[in-house]
Amino acid sequence: MRSRVARLYAAHDLRVEEDEVPAPGPGEVLLRMAAGGICGSDLHYYHDGGFGPVRVREPIISGHEASGRVAALGEGVKGPAPGTLVAVSPSQPCGDCEYCRAGQPIHCLSMRFMGSAMRLPHEQGMFRDLLVVPAAQVHAFPDTITPAEAACAEPLAVCLHAAAQAGGLAGKRVLITGAGPIGLLVLAAARHAGATDITVTDLTDAALERAREMGASQAINVATDADALAPLTRDKGQIDIAFDCSAAGSALRNAFAALRPRGTLVQVGVTGDVTIPLNALVGKEITWRGSQRFHPEFAEAVRLIGQRAIDVRPIISHSLPLERAAEAFDLASDRSLACKVQLSFAG
Amino acid sequence: MRSRVARLYAAHDLRVEEDEVPAPGPGEVLLRMAAGGICGSDLHYYHDGGFGPVRVREPIISGHEASGRVAALGEGVKGPAPGTLVAVSPSQPCGDCEYCRAGQPIHCLSMRFMGSAMRLPHEQGMFRDLLVVPAAQVHAFPDTITPAEAACAEPLAVCLHAAAQAGGLAGKRVLITGAGPIGLLVLAAARHAGATDITVTDLTDAALERAREMGASQAINVATDADALAPLTRDKGQIDIAFDCSAAGSALRNAFAALRPRGTLVQVGVTGDVTIPLNALVGKEITWRGSQRFHPEFAEAVRLIGQRAIDVRPIISHSLPLERAAEAFDLASDRSLACKVQLSFAG
Amino acid sequence: MRSRVARLYAAHDLRVEEDEVPAPGPGEVLLRMAAGGICGSDLHYYHDGGFGPVRVREPIISGHEASGRVAALGEGVKGPAPGTLVAVSPSQPCGDCEYCRAGQPIHCLSMRFMGSAMRLPHEQGMFRDLLVVPAAQVHAFPDTITPAEAACAEPLAVCLHAAAQAGGLAGKRVLITGAGPIGLLVLAAARHAGATDITVTDLTDAALERAREMGASQAINVATDADALAPLTRDKGQIDIAFDCSAAGSALRNAFAALRPRGTLVQVGVTGDVTIPLNALVGKEITWRGSQRFHPEFAEAVRLIGQRAIDVRPIISHSLPLERAAEAFDLASDRSLACKVQLSFAG
Amino acid sequence: MRSRVARLYAAHDLRVEEDEVPAPGPGEVLLRMAAGGICGSDLHYYHDGGFGPVRVREPIISGHEASGRVAALGEGVKGPAPGTLVAVSPSQPCGDCEYCRAGQPIHCLSMRFMGSAMRLPHEQGMFRDLLVVPAAQVHAFPDTITPAEAACAEPLAVCLHAAAQAGGLAGKRVLITGAGPIGLLVLAAARHAGATDITVTDLTDAALERAREMGASQAINVATDADALAPLTRDKGQIDIAFDCSAAGSALRNAFAALRPRGTLVQVGVTGDVTIPLNALVGKEITWRGSQRFHPEFAEAVRLIGQRAIDVRPIISHSLPLERAAEAFDLASDRSLACKVQLSFAG
Repeated sequence: MRSRVARLYAAHDLRVEEDEVPAPGPGEVLLRMAAGGICGSDLHYYHDGGFGPVRVREPIISGHEASGRVAALGEGVKGPAPGTLVAVSPSQPCGDCEYCRAGQPIHCLSMRFMGSAMRLPHEQGMFRDLLVVPAAQVHAFPDTITPAEAACAEPLAVCLHAAAQAGGLAGKRVLITGAGPIGLLVLAAARHAGATDITVTDLTDAALERAREMGASQAINVATDADALAPLTRDKGQIDIAFDCSAAGSALRNAFAALRPRGTLVQVGVTGDVTIPLNALVGKEITWRGSQRFHPEFAEAVRLIGQRAIDVRPIISHSLPLERAAEAFDLASDRSLACKVQLSFAG
Repeated sequence: MRSRVARLYAAHDLRVEEDEVPAPGPGEVLLRMAAGGICGSDLHYYHDGGFGPVRVREPIISGHEASGRVAALGEGVKGPAPGTLVAVSPSQPCGDCEYCRAGQPIHCLSMRFMGSAMRLPHEQGMFRDLLVVPAAQVHAFPDTITPAEAACAEPLAVCLHAAAQAGGLAGKRVLITGAGPIGLLVLAAARHAGATDITVTDLTDAALERAREMGASQAINVATDADALAPLTRDKGQIDIAFDCSAAGSALRNAFAALRPRGTLVQVGVTGDVTIPLNALVGKEITWRGSQRFHPEFAEAVRLIGQRAIDVRPIISHSLPLERAAEAFDLASDRSLACKVQLSFAG
Repeated sequence: MRSRVARLYAAHDLRVEEDEVPAPGPGEVLLRMAAGGICGSDLHYYHDGGFGPVRVREPIISGHEASGRVAALGEGVKGPAPGTLVAVSPSQPCGDCEYCRAGQPIHCLSMRFMGSAMRLPHEQGMFRDLLVVPAAQVHAFPDTITPAEAACAEPLAVCLHAAAQAGGLAGKRVLITGAGPIGLLVLAAARHAGATDITVTDLTDAALERAREMGASQAINVATDADALAPLTRDKGQIDIAFDCSAAGSALRNAFAALRPRGTLVQVGVTGDVTIPLNALVGKEITWRGSQRFHPEFAEAVRLIGQRAIDVRPIISHSLPLERAAEAFDLASDRSLACKVQLSFAG
Repeated sequence: MRSRVARLYAAHDLRVEEDEVPAPGPGEVLLRMAAGGICGSDLHYYHDGGFGPVRVREPIISGHEASGRVAALGEGVKGPAPGTLVAVSPSQPCGDCEYCRAGQPIHCLSMRFMGSAMRLPHEQGMFRDLLVVPAAQVHAFPDTITPAEAACAEPLAVCLHAAAQAGGLAGKRVLITGAGPIGLLVLAAARHAGATDITVTDLTDAALERAREMGASQAINVATDADALAPLTRDKGQIDIAFDCSAAGSALRNAFAALRPRGTLVQVGVTGDVTIPLNALVGKEITWRGSQRFHPEFAEAVRLIGQRAIDVRPIISHSLPLERAAEAFDLASDRSLACKVQLSFAG
């Protein structure tokens, strides 16, 4: 079988090509891919050839958040039935290292994460018409769900994991800095966990409008209305839990100013070096905790999307066919126009 | 009564002068001060006129870690008996604000902290022959303890509080960056809490030698022997809990590299802005928690020093009489010569 | 002014009488009471004259969960405006003891809790037409809310506090033993905090039917269908977090059997002595945590009811006028007929 | 090779017999056993044929806390060198079940624990002259340590694990109910973790005298001096953390009375059913947490005994040769005479 793939050769050199696809082996499934979302790390690879120490050093098929339909089952695989819509978890921990054995596969010493250029050889990704993966990585949806929604399981899993790092959220005052797809899904996850007083900040009105639609109590454009933050910083700060989904120094500064003493800052956005006000971290005894990827949360994300207990549809702004992949990447980079941009595949 | 005081007028302008001292009022005690330690914040005031947003804006009597002997009791005060050696807690929370009522007096919205230039008028400090304070702020020692040891109750309290932010320490692998007085007392507090595998780093051999004397398993000069850190960074890191007592960007970078995934970094040292590797915080899901001052730990520090369950004597390197205060401040700034430099008073 | 009150003289001796009501003093408000719910502790007083060490030792006006409308404001009180519907928090911590100062007013050493026979003199309760209370104890609702709903703020606060003792609930498998008013509101609180897989057990079909209506994933009558529990006990247990709202030994035994190793059991129901399988607590390293009353959760309960973010209406089964108080108490004791029985007042 | 073994056939039927011992296979070591301690569970098997649901259903070699010297290494085993003194961890989790993969091997669904009658066939124990075990289960000691001390690694590991369940202990007020070998090692573990204010209770003066020798601040005979507990129960309770090492209802009642609101009770002792005051658990919002066995703590116990950072020698009261095994079991049951009774072997 032949499959088209979207392969990145270098910054701004993304080519749609054809590859041979093997039949699924024992324990594997063949999927006809349906929808795939473009993520911030895909964009870093596309625009900058990587971020921090992670660089694209050989051609890599992009994409780690995608859905498809089961086309064929390898030997010994009982299901899901052909035609079933599934999301693919990109996470392949080794199962054997000290972190896998300690119940922390997120920190696997030999993690293979699809579509990631962190290790060499790079792990190939999911922006392709046909994909063979271990059956254990696919999670089925009911018929009521669209491929576009299913492809949001991965970013929602990221955000459920981030929300879990905060401890209980019910009744807490929450700040989310950054209203891109991740910020919006953190908003959904925080609401799902009982937070009802949630402020979202961004630099783009279009993003903030989406935050309002998804239930933010307050959405502040810190580029044009920075004064609106002032009430949150009263008396050393009013926010119990902040999620930074921007990795921007200025947003972090706002979060440190708004957090109460002994508040928690969950770091979701990532970049290389960043400069922060150490005196605020110490003086207010803030807990700043990094959140990376997900593990049990992937199945939970599938379940919540499957029941529409969390409705991810408002974050999906555009869908383009695979042959327009480069255009889709450019569009995804324009935050005034786009939120989550997805590719659609032959499946 | 007249008392000499060491009053800072501006950077490098520290004058020993005389002041009138009132009789102790109801609930107060009069102390003849015995020993007082020079702290890093005293040095910031002396050399730089402050740090970050905190500036010396009017003359201030320095000193917030000191001991003395009870000279007289105000009305209604039952003890301690005249002659008793006591340490003075510099902390005066209001008792009434939301943080005081929430059991977090460290974060009092109206905190008065002796010898601090944070608020205006500044809170006057303890480098003086005679001092009148509320009796509730003095804690008595047994006769076996020297005034020099008693004056270490405050910095030890800071370090017990920092150790408590780490959760349990027994059996954990610990890294301490910075081997000044605070780093050394964190070392003592971590050992007291059951940590036996403790690495200390610094740039000064003299400081590291003291760390070895106080029980460090390993002491590394990162200026001359940076390679010695490499084994600690193996497999994403080997350290469970790090304490940064330096506030230096390079030390923080070492701590982030040495911490295991899901490790904890307790921030004790403080400065203004600092640049850190956000990708390490996120990728290893590190918890970074600020530690500020102390509250119940002051009484605990007095108890541990009183029993010599923690022996603070090795950190005291010099003692000079009050009239040589400026010289003492200069000496305290030379880490190759000095560790904790104390002043002695007429009492 | 005169007000009718429902005063309990001894077991089964509940009299509706008239009392004189003073004008509201400085800082107080006068309320025309509207609705008041009968709670399990009220029933213990009514049927047994108390429970455990708590005994009715003098006549006591019953009731600690009630709503009313503001009739008049005492000196210095700015609001709420006359006519506003409010719920009354029955909790009056002293504000001065070590627990109040530690931010744990629930454990106030001198707690005065309205309608409680714990201390002598007993704290008089709220089942009355007119009530004068400190303005700080009343919380206002919007016009969309009924007095019956407002009177549920207190039991909902109890259940929000219980849910908070569980740590994060999002994505967890939950068991609730006991489907009376408290069990049902714990169910609502757990759903609000993101739990979607919730099993409820009881001995009464009517109670279980309500649990289903309020969103339980599964409702098991352990009197008639004990086998239905078996799947929950597979492989040492399948439940992450259990809430016991029954205080019955058999229900606790089920909870211990169903909990996973390192699961958490939050104890909401209370009685005197109870016999439990210590080997399960130890062998599975279960954490069993008591939950008592509420503090910040009262305001949160008012907010959630006010927005109908939690809809309490399904738990209210009956409403009788004050003059039929004894009949209402009898009805509330019949779990096959009633869930939350409320009294209505002249206001 | 032939080895003597102490095999229990039924209650009070303990026989010293001879068995054939195979040569060590690949990955195994042959040990000449040196010392083995008699534990409470061994006594339960010996006196009662089991406890709770655990019953001796076939002959079982007793003993799960023992030391020996390496006699021979199987294929592929690099060390320890012949002659080295080692302790044997009795714990053999499967490494494959959901709990092993979650980093909780203590809760392995297929745990094989040497000398335990929990599963069928029973896991054979260590009271024998020669033993073949996987090399991964042996931990080496320096030459300064005696076999008797080495045989205490297992019970010390149990107690380090219990101490870890308490969160930080430094500066906390601690109560230990039960001063048998486990209570005394919990005392040692709590002191190691920084607790300095530790009260121990028991019914036997001899046990309490040992507690004093090992550093208890206070040792109370609750049989003869129950009034001495009263100060600990003042103002709802004065104890931050209690360890119950007795599994006795009366001791638990004391612990509940002495614990402060929001205090923690770590349950180390185990029995079947026990009756407890539920109103205290709820009213004081106590956290009661079971502690079972150990995992990383075995290596830590070996390290602490190896450095004598914890000195276990005071708990060892008697040592009898294997041929007097039955006598040793009887002696170990007499708490007025004995603390830890050990057997010595031919090795």
